[in-house]
Amino acid sequence: MTTIDPAPRALSLLGLGDMGAALGHAWLDAGHPLTVWNRTAGKARPLAAKGATVAPTAADAVAAADLVVVCLLDDASVDQVLAGTDISGKDLVNLTTGTPGEARARAAWAAERGARLLDGGIMAVPPMIGVPDSGAYVFYSGPKEVFEAHRETLAVPAGAVHVGEDAGMAALHDVALLSAMLGMMSGMAHAYALFRREKTPPARLAGPLADWVAGMAASYARELAEHLECGDYTRDVTSNLAMMVRANATLLRTAEEQGVGTELLEPYMRLMERRLAEGHAAEGTAGVVDLLLR
Amino acid sequence: MTTIDPAPRALSLLGLGDMGAALGHAWLDAGHPLTVWNRTAGKARPLAAKGATVAPTAADAVAAADLVVVCLLDDASVDQVLAGTDISGKDLVNLTTGTPGEARARAAWAAERGARLLDGGIMAVPPMIGVPDSGAYVFYSGPKEVFEAHRETLAVPAGAVHVGEDAGMAALHDVALLSAMLGMMSGMAHAYALFRREKTPPARLAGPLADWVAGMAASYARELAEHLECGDYTRDVTSNLAMMVRANATLLRTAEEQGVGTELLEPYMRLMERRLAEGHAAEGTAGVVDLLLR
Repeated sequence: MTTIDPAPRALSLLGLGDMGAALGHAWLDAGHPLTVWNRTAGKARPLAAKGATVAPTAADAVAAADLVVVCLLDDASVDQVLAGTDISGKDLVNLTTGTPGEARARAAWAAERGARLLDGGIMAVPPMIGVPDSGAYVFYSGPKEVFEAHRETLAVPAGAVHVGEDAGMAALHDVALLSAMLGMMSGMAHAYALFRREKTPPARLAGPLADWVAGMAASYARELAEHLECGDYTRDVTSNLAMMVRANATLLRTAEEQGVGTELLEPYMRLMERRLAEGHAAEGTAGVVDLLLR
Repeated sequence: MTTIDPAPRALSLLGLGDMGAALGHAWLDAGHPLTVWNRTAGKARPLAAKGATVAPTAADAVAAADLVVVCLLDDASVDQVLAGTDISGKDLVNLTTGTPGEARARAAWAAERGARLLDGGIMAVPPMIGVPDSGAYVFYSGPKEVFEAHRETLAVPAGAVHVGEDAGMAALHDVALLSAMLGMMSGMAHAYALFRREKTPPARLAGPLADWVAGMAASYARELAEHLECGDYTRDVTSNLAMMVRANATLLRTAEEQGVGTELLEPYMRLMERRLAEGHAAEGTAGVVDLLLR
């Protein structure tokens, strides 16, 4: 069987900040006819030099293609930029950073205007866009058939992963991963602070630290998921809450010895202690997740 | 050239809690003549059944071998247990969990009594001990020649890594890694909490979450180390403080939408904001490490 690659589809792109520009270059490099628009027109110049059509207004850009990608500063900018445009019959892909709630509201707003919306959360910084094997990918949520209709085009700048029909799921995945990253970063900040007044060069800590955290990530993420799913937070626990809370005391005393503030560790320790005090010594740490719910 | 494996060396082990017992089994399984002691003698029975000699007192256990390993509850227990023993001429390996300061004080204490001390920080839970490829290892610090003299014996239950002549370095590495792990765990707890009221099963988040954190760990640990070492926290930065602080607002708004407390994220965000307010928009996050120092 011979499959014929369809010609690269035309699309419009509104918003040419660092991320928007990187996306535009990736689509142009792959041969997609591209119409671009940006509030300050100068940003369009490098893309125009590569063959992009520069639309004089946002409305013109929207009118120029059936697939319209917006990558703006925030949800309020999306509102302003799309205000005077006719999106009916369009497939709108919103790569503007926002919350799940904003994505859901934007999907309803688009539906009222006769458009179908995919929301996207980009898991990459601009230099990773359009670079094969950079690991960049985008979470998409919204109607699966819209995702499938544009899958090949969407997969040009970065990997494309559909995570749900509910428009909010892409932003929720995006924010969940970024939140977890902040936790990892805060833990590493504390670790390096402990060494800051020692003669040991920090590079000596980097390898063991990264191997330890990376080696733990998959099994810990899986343990938490399994516990939360089955509701039995004691199943197959190797380090239980009682042991961990005991170990916390050594972590705090060490921070004090090394002259390091404990504000990055204490909130999590307090939640572990609360759960332990509620009589859950044999559990792992999944109970902490429930304590976070308001 | 033919190398002849030396016969497994005799050693004594004081303290047969879960970890001590696991260590004892590993040495016995590898053919090491082993003398054991524990405050409550019943704990010695499974090891005795495998050929360990059970010493009636801690002093007898210390007297029975030149290499003496202690694995007790805490530093106060080490004090009590070794009080009436003659450690002069012994090589003492202290695998009791403690702080760098406790390890340094214990090394001085041992030297005054004519013993050489290695302090160890065990990076494993008991079920990983003596299991090939479990990834278990122990940080050791103290005189390198003592480590070298016993390297083969020490490497039986778990990998053996020497991290410095200063006796405090093993505990410092141990606590640094555990502190970083708490950070990672707190980040993942927040991530799962964001999904707790959604219909999406938590297992759907586990893979992306683990890949994201594990994929980021090495480059982030290296970036922090390089910045701290060179003092220029702006070098090769892809996500700068200004961008990250802007993104934090989306993380906080999402937590609020999902009904999740922000106490695990806020302390780190506050430090990022402080550093940004001090005029370091183009930096990465290494400045947070310095803000932790008291």
